[in-house]
Amino acid sequence: MNAVAFDKEPVSITASDWVPDFAQGMVRDLRLRWALEEAGLPYEVELVPQGTQARAHNLSRQPFGQIPTLTAGPETMFESGACVWRIAGASESLSPGDEAGRDRCLSWVFAALNTVEPPLSMMATLFFFETQPEQFGIADAGAVATIKPGARAAALLRLKQLADVLGKRRHLVADRFTIADLMMVTVLRVADSLDLLAELPDLRRYVSLHTARPAFRKALEGQLAPFRENAAKYETAG
Amino acid sequence: MNAVAFDKEPVSITASDWVPDFAQGMVRDLRLRWALEEAGLPYEVELVPQGTQARAHNLSRQPFGQIPTLTAGPETMFESGACVWRIAGASESLSPGDEAGRDRCLSWVFAALNTVEPPLSMMATLFFFETQPEQFGIADAGAVATIKPGARAAALLRLKQLADVLGKRRHLVADRFTIADLMMVTVLRVADSLDLLAELPDLRRYVSLHTARPAFRKALEGQLAPFRENAAKYETAG
Repeated sequence: MNAVAFDKEPVSITASDWVPDFAQGMVRDLRLRWALEEAGLPYEVELVPQGTQARAHNLSRQPFGQIPTLTAGPETMFESGACVWRIAGASESLSPGDEAGRDRCLSWVFAALNTVEPPLSMMATLFFFETQPEQFGIADAGAVATIKPGARAAALLRLKQLADVLGKRRHLVADRFTIADLMMVTVLRVADSLDLLAELPDLRRYVSLHTARPAFRKALEGQLAPFRENAAKYETAG
Repeated sequence: MNAVAFDKEPVSITASDWVPDFAQGMVRDLRLRWALEEAGLPYEVELVPQGTQARAHNLSRQPFGQIPTLTAGPETMFESGACVWRIAGASESLSPGDEAGRDRCLSWVFAALNTVEPPLSMMATLFFFETQPEQFGIADAGAVATIKPGARAAALLRLKQLADVLGKRRHLVADRFTIADLMMVTVLRVADSLDLLAELPDLRRYVSLHTARPAFRKALEGQLAPFRENAAKYETAG
C-alpha cells in the first residue's frame, strides 16, 4: 500500500537546476531519467536550485541532501540505486522475466555501486582535494599527487576485473540490455571522466554501445537543458 | 525459476578461513550470517582459504574475487547488499509487510552502501596506504597524514547527517528492526573501528542496541570461530 506507484499518476524526480561544468551530465538523476525513458514511463522533474540541496526542504525527503529522489503520491524514495531498482521492477524493458535473472541483475547493480564506484569516488574526492585544498583543510595540495598512484591502482584493479568478466560481450546479464548494464555504464562514465578507461577498450566499447541508446541521449539532454537555461544566472553570480 | 531458493535445501555462503586481526569481525559475510540468523534460515558455510579469493575457483562465482557469495542450487549471487536484500525478501522477520515500507528499506540499504560506506572505505584505504606505503606505490607515507583531515571531514559529514535523521529513534524504518538497520549497523561498525563515532553518541547507542541482538552475536561468533581454529596455520606462515 502507498508504495511508489507508476500506474496512477506521473512520478516526479528531483534534479539540479545547474551544476558546474565538471558535473554536467554526471548528476545521478541521469540514472533515473535513463531508466524511466527505457521503460517509457512518464515523469515530471522538480528542479532544486543550486546551493539549496542541503536545506530543510530537500533534507526532509533526502536525509543526505542529495539529488535525486523519486516521488509518487505520498511516498518518496532516495538513492539512485534504490530508485532505479524500483523503476526496473515496474517495467519488463529493464529486467529479465525470470527471478534468477533479476537476482543476477541485483548482484550487478550492487557491484556497480559498492565495488566499482567507491574507488572512483575516492579518485574524484582526491581531485577536489587537489584543486580546492583550502576548502577541505588540506595543508599541502602536493600530498594529493603522492597518494594518487595508489588510489588509481585500486580503481584500475576493479575496472580490469570487470573487463575480464565482460570480455567482448555486450551485456552483463541475460544477453539483453538490463538495469545491470544501465547502472554499470553510468559508473563507467565516471571512470572515463577520470581518464581511467584509456587502456580498457572493451569497457570503452561497452559504454559507447549503450550511451548511443535513444533513451540515454534523451535522458542526458533532459539533464543538460536546464543547465543551459540557468547558466547565465549562476555563472555571473560566481 | 532457478532463483536462489530458501525452501528446498540449505543455502550456502562463502566466508574466509582466516583474516588478519584488523579484519576479524568485519568481513562482509557477517551481513549474510546476521540476516540468515534473524530469518531463522539454515545455511552452510564454505570457507575460502586465505589468499585464494582472487583465484579461478572463487572468481568463477565472484567477479571481483571477494567474500561473500550466496548459493542455492545452481544460482549464486554476489555483493553483500544484493544477498542480504534477497534474504530479506524471503523472511518477514527482516522486512515490513507493506510495499512502501520495503521501498523505504531499499532506500536505506543503498544509502548505507553507496552514501555512508564509500567515505569510510576511503578512510580505510588511507589507513592501508599509511601502514604499507610501499605496497601501494606511495612514495611518502607522510602525505597520507596530510590528506586525512579532508577524508575524515567527508566521512563525518555523512555520519552527522545520519545522526540528525535517526535522533533518539531505535530504527530507521517502520518502528521495528529491519534489513535497513542491519545494513546500516554493519556500516557503522566500520566507522567505529575507524574511531569516527566518538562524538556521535546516538549512533553509538544505535550500534550497541542492535549488536546486542542474539542473531548478531551468533553471526559474529560464526565468523570468528574458524579464525581461531586456523590462526596457528597463518600466523606462523606470516
